[in-house]
Amino acid sequence: MTALCADLYEIRMAASYLRRGMNAPATFSLFARKLPRARGFLVAAGLADCLSFLERLRFDADELAYLGDVVGLPDGDLAALGELRFEGEVLAVPEGRVVFAGEPFIEVTAPIAQAQLAETALLNFVTFESSVATKAARCRLAAPGAELVDFAARRTHGLEAARAVARASAIAGFTGTSYVAAAREFGLRPVGTMAHSYVEAFPCERDAFLAFARDFPEAAVLLVDTYDTLHGVRTAIELASEVRGPLGVRLDSGDLAGLSKQTRELLDEAGLTGARIMASGGLDEHRLAEITAAGAPIDAFGIGTRMGVSADAPSLDSAYKLVEYEGRPVMKLSPEKLTAPGAKQVYRGGTGEADLLALREEPPPDGREALLRPAMTGGVRVAGDGVASARAWCEHDLGWLPERARLLVDPSPGEVAWTPELRRLTDGLQRSLAVKHGPEPAEQP
Amino acid sequence: MTALCADLYEIRMAASYLRRGMNAPATFSLFARKLPRARGFLVAAGLADCLSFLERLRFDADELAYLGDVVGLPDGDLAALGELRFEGEVLAVPEGRVVFAGEPFIEVTAPIAQAQLAETALLNFVTFESSVATKAARCRLAAPGAELVDFAARRTHGLEAARAVARASAIAGFTGTSYVAAAREFGLRPVGTMAHSYVEAFPCERDAFLAFARDFPEAAVLLVDTYDTLHGVRTAIELASEVRGPLGVRLDSGDLAGLSKQTRELLDEAGLTGARIMASGGLDEHRLAEITAAGAPIDAFGIGTRMGVSADAPSLDSAYKLVEYEGRPVMKLSPEKLTAPGAKQVYRGGTGEADLLALREEPPPDGREALLRPAMTGGVRVAGDGVASARAWCEHDLGWLPERARLLVDPSPGEVAWTPELRRLTDGLQRSLAVKHGPEPAEQP
Repeated sequence: MTALCADLYEIRMAASYLRRGMNAPATFSLFARKLPRARGFLVAAGLADCLSFLERLRFDADELAYLGDVVGLPDGDLAALGELRFEGEVLAVPEGRVVFAGEPFIEVTAPIAQAQLAETALLNFVTFESSVATKAARCRLAAPGAELVDFAARRTHGLEAARAVARASAIAGFTGTSYVAAAREFGLRPVGTMAHSYVEAFPCERDAFLAFARDFPEAAVLLVDTYDTLHGVRTAIELASEVRGPLGVRLDSGDLAGLSKQTRELLDEAGLTGARIMASGGLDEHRLAEITAAGAPIDAFGIGTRMGVSADAPSLDSAYKLVEYEGRPVMKLSPEKLTAPGAKQVYRGGTGEADLLALREEPPPDGREALLRPAMTGGVRVAGDGVASARAWCEHDLGWLPERARLLVDPSPGEVAWTPELRRLTDGLQRSLAVKHGPEPAEQP
Repeated sequence: MTALCADLYEIRMAASYLRRGMNAPATFSLFARKLPRARGFLVAAGLADCLSFLERLRFDADELAYLGDVVGLPDGDLAALGELRFEGEVLAVPEGRVVFAGEPFIEVTAPIAQAQLAETALLNFVTFESSVATKAARCRLAAPGAELVDFAARRTHGLEAARAVARASAIAGFTGTSYVAAAREFGLRPVGTMAHSYVEAFPCERDAFLAFARDFPEAAVLLVDTYDTLHGVRTAIELASEVRGPLGVRLDSGDLAGLSKQTRELLDEAGLTGARIMASGGLDEHRLAEITAAGAPIDAFGIGTRMGVSADAPSLDSAYKLVEYEGRPVMKLSPEKLTAPGAKQVYRGGTGEADLLALREEPPPDGREALLRPAMTGGVRVAGDGVASARAWCEHDLGWLPERARLLVDPSPGEVAWTPELRRLTDGLQRSLAVKHGPEPAEQP
C-alpha cells in the first residue's frame, strides 16, 4: 500500500490544492447512501486497514518519477506531493459495531490534499470488509447453535481478500478459518479436513480414511461424499476402532439436512455419539436457516464462497464525501446523491429507538451513546482495537438490534433520525446552492 | 504470496503424502462446472498470478515454525515441506481466450503434494480474474463504439483486487484505468477527471472549473453534475475561451442518455464540437446497452463497481480436481459434482462448431486448434504472455464467439462435446467406482 493506491483524480486534485495553497482542513464523511435490499443492518469493518493506509500515506521517489513522466505533473507538484504525510484526525465507529444508511463509518479531517488522497483506499476497505462482515453476521444469526468457520479463500477476489474475509468473519463470530496465512496473521484458529483428491489418490476410500486418521488423529474429520455419502459414513465407522483420536465426518454435497440425520443415526448406533458432523458446500444464511429449521444435527458449518464474496450484495452504495471545507459546510445536489453537510456524530439509544444523526458541534443528547470515536489524532493512531474487541462489539450490537432488522428476508433497516439542527443546515444550504447553481431546487432526500 | 496462502487441508494432505512417500505425478484440472446463468462464455484470466505463485511456492522458516507450533506438524513433516518447490508442468488456456463450462483453464501435473498445495491460490486467481474479465468483456460487447475505462478501484474487494480488475478489464479491451498503482504496474493508461469535492471546495462551480482547467489544460474533463448538470455544462462552455486545452465534461448522475443529448447540443451550439462527453455512475453491460440503444452521444464510459465485483456473478462454480494419479484416472461421484477423469485437451473449430473435450493422449483431430498450451515445464515458466497478448486473444475470440453466446440477456453458452474415448473412460470408471463404493450408480452428468 502506497499513496499511488489511489484514483488518478485524487492525485490531480491534491496537486491542484497544494499548488494553490489550499491547505485548510476538510472533513470527509464515509457512509453508505442506502443499504442493499437484503440487508437490515451493516457490521462496520475495514477500519484497521484504513488506519494502516493513512499511517503510510506517502509517495516514494520512483512513484513521483512516474507521476512526472507519465501523468505529466511538473516538478513543483512532485516536490509538494513528496512531502505529503497524513497529519489529520479520524473519528470512526469501532469495527464490529452495527451501522445503518447515512451513518458515517469514518470521518476524516485533515488538510484537503491529505484527506482527498485517501478516498479510494478508505472507501475500498470499508465497503468490502463491511459487506463481508455483514454477510457473515447474517450467517451467524441464521445458525445460532452451530459453529461456523470460514472456507472462502478459494473464491474470494484475490488472496488479500481471503485474508480480509477471514478477519471479517471472525469479527462476526466465526470460530476459525481454513486460510492459514490469515489464521497466522490474526491469531485465528486454522481449520481443515481433507479433500476429495485425497480419497481418490488412494486405491480405495477405506485406505484413504485410515491413512488420514493415523496421520492426524487429533483432527480426523473424514470427507465422506466422494463416492456415496452413507457408504462413506459406514466406512468411517468401521475404522473408528482402529484410530486413536475423536472421529468426525464432513458432508459436502446432496441433501445436507437429510444426510446429516442419517449420518447421526449411523454414528449413534455405532456408539460414536461424540463424533462430530461438519457440513459445507454452497452455504449462506438462507441455506443455514433451512438446514437449522429442518433440525439437522450438524455441529459445524464451513461457509465459503457466498459469504466470502457477499454474493447477493458484493458491494455497498458507499460514498466518501466532502462535508466541510475551511469551516464552511458543503454538499452536492446530484439526483439521489444529495449529501448532508457538516461534520457529524451518531447517537444511539435502546433497542427500537432510532439512531440520531447530529452535527458534531451539537451538544450530545442525554442517555445516548456516541458511535464515532477518535481513531487517529495528528496522524497518529489512537485506537488499535483488534479482532477480539471487534468481535465483542459485534456480539453486543447484534443483541441490541431490533428483530425486524435481523430478518434474513425482507428486513427493515434500523431507523436514523436527523436532529433539527442538521435538517435546518441541510435545507438552508440546499436552497442557497440551488439558487446559485441550478434552475430548480433539487428534491428533498 | 507464500505457500502458507493455502487452506489448511492442503498442507495436511501434502504432509501426509510426503510422509507416505506418495510422490507420483498427479494431474489436477481447473475448470468451471457450469457457467453463471447470465453468462454465455468466460474470458480466461488469472494465469499470470498462478504462475507467479507456483514459481514462489515454498515455506520459510517462520512459517514452518507456525505449522509446528500451532498446527502440530512434527519435525519430519516440517523438513519435508521446507524442501518442497513446484517442479511440475502446467498446461493452460492463454489469458484472454474464451472458455466454456467443463473446459480446463489450467491443468497441473506434478508430484501430488506440490500440485495439492496450489489448489486455493490457483482456484482463487482464475475464478476471480476470469469473472471480472468476462463481465468487462460483456460491457465491451454492449458498447462497441465507445471507449471504456476502469473506475472500479474504490469498491473492489481490497486493493490487490483493484490491481487485478484493472488488468482483467484491460484484457477485455478497456483502454485505461483510474487506479494509478495498476496503471504503473501494467503499463496501462491512467485516466481521471475531478470529484464533486473539488467543485465544493471552491466558492462556486465556476471557480473550480477554471482552476482545474488551468492546472490541467491537457486533461480538463469537468464534472458537471455537482449541483445541476446542464447548469454545469453551461458554466463549462462559458469558460472554454479562457482555457488552453481541449475541454471535456463528465456526467455522473441522472438520465445519462437524455442529459448527454442535451449536453452535446449545448456544446455543439457553442462550437465545441470536439469537446468529449464522458459518463459514469452505476454502469454495467445492461445500462450500457440501454444507453447505446438510445443513441446517446457519449464518447467514453467509466465503468466501476458492477464490473469490478462482477456484481451479478461475483464467483464461478469452479473446481480444482484430481483427474489422474500415478497414471490412474480418477473421479468423484458426488451428486452434481461428478468430474471427468484423465488429463485433457480442448480442441476448437469454426464459429458455431462445438468445442471438443478430449483425453490429452488422444490424437488431435484435423483442422482444430488445441486451446491448452504449455505454460510451465519442470517448474519453469515457458509462457509469459502479458496484457497485450491477452487482449489480442480476447478480441479474436469475442469475434469468433457465436451470436447466441454473446447475448447480454439469456445467452446460450457455447457447446462442448466429449470425444467417444473420454465418454467411455468416464462411464467405465463411474460404474466400477459405484460398484466398489456405493449402493447405487450415480446419475450421468
